[in-house]
Amino acid sequence: MAHEHISTAFDMELDELRHSILAMAGKVELLISNSIKSLVNRDSVLADRTIAQDHEINAAEVAIDERCLELLALRQPAARDLRFITIVLKIVTDLERMGDQCAHIAKRARELNEEPPLKPYIDIPRMAHWTEVMVKEALDAFVNADADLAFKVCNDDKFVDDLNIQVQRELLTYMIEDPSTITRAIKLNYISKSLERIADHATNISEMVIFMVRGKDIRHTIA
Amino acid sequence: MAHEHISTAFDMELDELRHSILAMAGKVELLISNSIKSLVNRDSVLADRTIAQDHEINAAEVAIDERCLELLALRQPAARDLRFITIVLKIVTDLERMGDQCAHIAKRARELNEEPPLKPYIDIPRMAHWTEVMVKEALDAFVNADADLAFKVCNDDKFVDDLNIQVQRELLTYMIEDPSTITRAIKLNYISKSLERIADHATNISEMVIFMVRGKDIRHTIA
Repeated sequence: MAHEHISTAFDMELDELRHSILAMAGKVELLISNSIKSLVNRDSVLADRTIAQDHEINAAEVAIDERCLELLALRQPAARDLRFITIVLKIVTDLERMGDQCAHIAKRARELNEEPPLKPYIDIPRMAHWTEVMVKEALDAFVNADADLAFKVCNDDKFVDDLNIQVQRELLTYMIEDPSTITRAIKLNYISKSLERIADHATNISEMVIFMVRGKDIRHTIA
Repeated sequence: MAHEHISTAFDMELDELRHSILAMAGKVELLISNSIKSLVNRDSVLADRTIAQDHEINAAEVAIDERCLELLALRQPAARDLRFITIVLKIVTDLERMGDQCAHIAKRARELNEEPPLKPYIDIPRMAHWTEVMVKEALDAFVNADADLAFKVCNDDKFVDDLNIQVQRELLTYMIEDPSTITRAIKLNYISKSLERIADHATNISEMVIFMVRGKDIRHTIA
């Protein structure tokens, strides 16, 4: 408790942490967008770049993790700041795994670009757009401790889930009508599932934000 | 640093934390086993129970998270203990998501139990067994700070990945030969993917353990 109000230096350090995690999230949003562009535009060079850039996300995870440990050790934060830092530790893991999913998408795109296109892509780019917005809003909700925005992200997840089911059903009709489409359809199915997993990570982050804000509110009620 | 050696009470609290996370992992191992049993034995009652028990995993996550925050606030641990607690915070998230995957498997099993069996299940139970062992060993590696065991888990992940690819290929041949099998084959595919995701979580935990132990070793080299 002793450390709660004394340190403007600590406030600046927390602000830097906030900026680092937003910068990491911004990179992830770009990877989501580029992984799907590499599919839609049949751009395997962009797919290669996306796969390579996943390493930057991994490096950001390690750096932010270490910074959190330093701040916990040196500043020994209490209450709200403590909860903030421990949630940062969890969020970086979610962001890192989103990066992994983008690399998976880019790998499948690279394979699909070697074959004739199965169909025009309509729902998958829509899913990608929604997923990107969810990631952005989940992080905005976190840095602004905005539970309403976090609830919105959790609700939007249903929309991405529904799009995923729609994509799966459509691909199923292709597979039944023409078994020669099955391997391509399964790859598209994985891309759709990867986007759904990224949206799940954004939802997980939003649930933590709601818990963080609600936790604070409960303390306020008691105090 | 001041708190590092004074507190046997703190040592006991860390031991309790270690036991809570092992107990949580034990529950997850049981859910993996039961979700696959509900498929293989066509036991939808067991599937229902598995889906319901996922809530216990969620409750364990919240309880352990809160305990970690309390220990960080009250004990202000340094160095090794600090790293230990922050990794517990990350591990509970992985365990909670394994529980989600078990619920997904049980839901697909319940659906598949309504239809004629597609094929005898051989590789999926093998995958489940390996995955369960990986979860157990990842947690053993964590509580014993055993980097060698953690490396073993990371290597075993390749075996589960290969089994997943084998299952996918086999299901593909069913789908191509008889399109009426496609919906069932896709559900089995999801089950196989869920097991692979659980194995990924065990691998993530093991990577954190390696980092934790290596971090400690680096400090030992400097000291």
